[in-house]
Amino acid sequence: MAGPATYFDPSHLSDLDPATRDLVERRSRVLGSAYRLFYDDPVQLVRGAGTRVYDVNGVEYLDAYNNVPSVGHAHPRVAAAMTKQAGLLTTHTRYLSEGIVAYAEDLLGTLPESIDNIMFTCTGSEANDLALRIAKLVTGGTGVVVTRNAYHGVTTEVAAISPSLGGLESVAEWVETVSVDDLAAGVGAAFARLEARGIRPAAFVVDTILASDGVFPDAPLNDAAAAARAAGALVIADEVQPGFGRLGHGMWGFERYGFVPDLVTVGKPMGNGQPIAAVMAPHALIDEFNRHSRYFNTFGGSSVSIAAAQATLDVLRDEQLIDNARDVGAYLLDELRRMPFLEVRGTGLFIGARLESADRAVATVNALRDRRVLLSASGAENDTLKIRPPLPFSRADADRLLTELAAVL
Amino acid sequence: MAGPATYFDPSHLSDLDPATRDLVERRSRVLGSAYRLFYDDPVQLVRGAGTRVYDVNGVEYLDAYNNVPSVGHAHPRVAAAMTKQAGLLTTHTRYLSEGIVAYAEDLLGTLPESIDNIMFTCTGSEANDLALRIAKLVTGGTGVVVTRNAYHGVTTEVAAISPSLGGLESVAEWVETVSVDDLAAGVGAAFARLEARGIRPAAFVVDTILASDGVFPDAPLNDAAAAARAAGALVIADEVQPGFGRLGHGMWGFERYGFVPDLVTVGKPMGNGQPIAAVMAPHALIDEFNRHSRYFNTFGGSSVSIAAAQATLDVLRDEQLIDNARDVGAYLLDELRRMPFLEVRGTGLFIGARLESADRAVATVNALRDRRVLLSASGAENDTLKIRPPLPFSRADADRLLTELAAVL
Repeated sequence: MAGPATYFDPSHLSDLDPATRDLVERRSRVLGSAYRLFYDDPVQLVRGAGTRVYDVNGVEYLDAYNNVPSVGHAHPRVAAAMTKQAGLLTTHTRYLSEGIVAYAEDLLGTLPESIDNIMFTCTGSEANDLALRIAKLVTGGTGVVVTRNAYHGVTTEVAAISPSLGGLESVAEWVETVSVDDLAAGVGAAFARLEARGIRPAAFVVDTILASDGVFPDAPLNDAAAAARAAGALVIADEVQPGFGRLGHGMWGFERYGFVPDLVTVGKPMGNGQPIAAVMAPHALIDEFNRHSRYFNTFGGSSVSIAAAQATLDVLRDEQLIDNARDVGAYLLDELRRMPFLEVRGTGLFIGARLESADRAVATVNALRDRRVLLSASGAENDTLKIRPPLPFSRADADRLLTELAAVL
Repeated sequence: MAGPATYFDPSHLSDLDPATRDLVERRSRVLGSAYRLFYDDPVQLVRGAGTRVYDVNGVEYLDAYNNVPSVGHAHPRVAAAMTKQAGLLTTHTRYLSEGIVAYAEDLLGTLPESIDNIMFTCTGSEANDLALRIAKLVTGGTGVVVTRNAYHGVTTEVAAISPSLGGLESVAEWVETVSVDDLAAGVGAAFARLEARGIRPAAFVVDTILASDGVFPDAPLNDAAAAARAAGALVIADEVQPGFGRLGHGMWGFERYGFVPDLVTVGKPMGNGQPIAAVMAPHALIDEFNRHSRYFNTFGGSSVSIAAAQATLDVLRDEQLIDNARDVGAYLLDELRRMPFLEVRGTGLFIGARLESADRAVATVNALRDRRVLLSASGAENDTLKIRPPLPFSRADADRLLTELAAVL
């Protein structure tokens, strides 16, 4: 990642208060160098409710960042569903269970009719990894096209299609990238470059909000998907971040465009924090995969995870959170566009607001944290504020964010 | 997998009672062909406690199979810890948290001093995938040696080192296998075969109870590990199945041998069913990995998962379940060896009992299910009963299993 980061710099340990310093030191001894902390002054959260979180000293923060607790922190209905199921049974999918079948029917009912099978995993990484395995087996190809700063997860296979992790030189030789500016023409050209190297097409994998590229709600994804299909590739819609209504328009990011993906992957907000994710696809693809390889995910679709996912989906509907994302998101976008940002992009409660530099973005993120508003920065240049709160984010929450942002900028 | 399987055959749908048939049909419509069910007459479990599970009609079964709910089904202390945390906060590792640090210190304290860092994932597959990524980056090699019928998970990378999933022809070109009979001499020879093909050594990955190969408690793993090191490879101990005391001798399978692995992976029983897993390694390896690639696992080490894992570890100790595994396991082994099995292998509560054929094993598994005792079959020939109950399995539970087994055989 370019420029300064929104992470705590371990060389500034002595700036911290003694209790925090002690915990950071102990943490770094056992979790090691791969684990990073947000903010110059890391936050120790112990409790949450709705869009608010509270630190170990009882200080309250507005959460304008966390997309995983999507229906609100520690939502009582999700917690109650997990409590009930954890007290009854947690088991895998080789015993019959009504819950997983009912949830699968419910979720698949929100997708185009052609997508009629679901396979559960625990993380978005596992979902994208499995989707790619299926695509490679079904097409017989290995070539994959992704966007220039794509992020699709951390298994070996999907890290190899995630230039945002280690730069363009870190992607595998069977991967070509395309810039967001050039999606319509670029996808066909990228598959042609792969073919020229003797690599047959397998998949075009795309996050339908292009989050790690910097949040682009109006990219020409219909054309890109059509170009991928024309090249003989399958289209994998990575809905791990945009999915489950965050964009304020239906359940899925691809719905805003109109194309129907071949495979859809979901994760993060699915269980409001419980580790559950999935691949959804037409049964013909699953059947073909199944003829080649066994697949069983011990914790994928286990009882407590399904209970959490069903409760999350119920709350999303009952509290009309997609409408809220649409309305509060539109208000936020309007107001942010009156502020001194170079550019404000987004839809629903997925918004990127670009500043002049990564330095400026990182300073803003840390200043907001000191004013008890949590968000972060992203984009290829790390110059873009990432505003992506739990979906119950109210107009009053938006006003608080805007007020603090105005004070900081 | 060779021979008949212990799974429900979908062509026998009409044999089921109407309610079960309806649920199986709905299930197969949405979960698709990759999802299989245990038994000719699938079981619909809804509740569990200790070593007992109960189906939708209230019928009670003795669980002699499930290794994930290791401290007992729906253990009240684990359920209470999850309930408390789910009602407070579920969040990721970029905020400070005492719980994850305390758990990491606690767990690393059970390992050799050289292994001082932990990285959390959600599944054993993710843990093995990450361990292999680390090993390849650190060694600069790609060559991996595994056992002939190894199983290390389902991501693309670890499925490629898991011949038990798709046969020897399904492993990657950078993999060589070695038979359990030939481990001492075979590992060095396997790395030599890789070198002859221009593939430099990265890792020897081994399940320390050799579960999918058929359960071998007395394999020459010290020699195998030494041979791997001599070839320049790292040794990854896959403790996903043997770990956390199941073998009745300390916490880890490699302890029974004495060699110290370079990396240790853990999973299944870690959170008693909650999706949590980990890689543990010397910090020098983690630091080197971290210089090459970012790694962040959204749900890995999240608050509820850590709460479940800590409670599970506390119960394992407080209820002295490793001693119970040793004692009841020894009793079971003795008694099983008086019965008409071709061979009985195991240690603690991880036992394989081989019959004449897969047909015989599958018939036995289904007959036991009808007598309300749950277990399964495994091994390369699927002719071996897999006895691997929750660790609170009592002597009375063992007697019930033995009585029903005698009636069936």
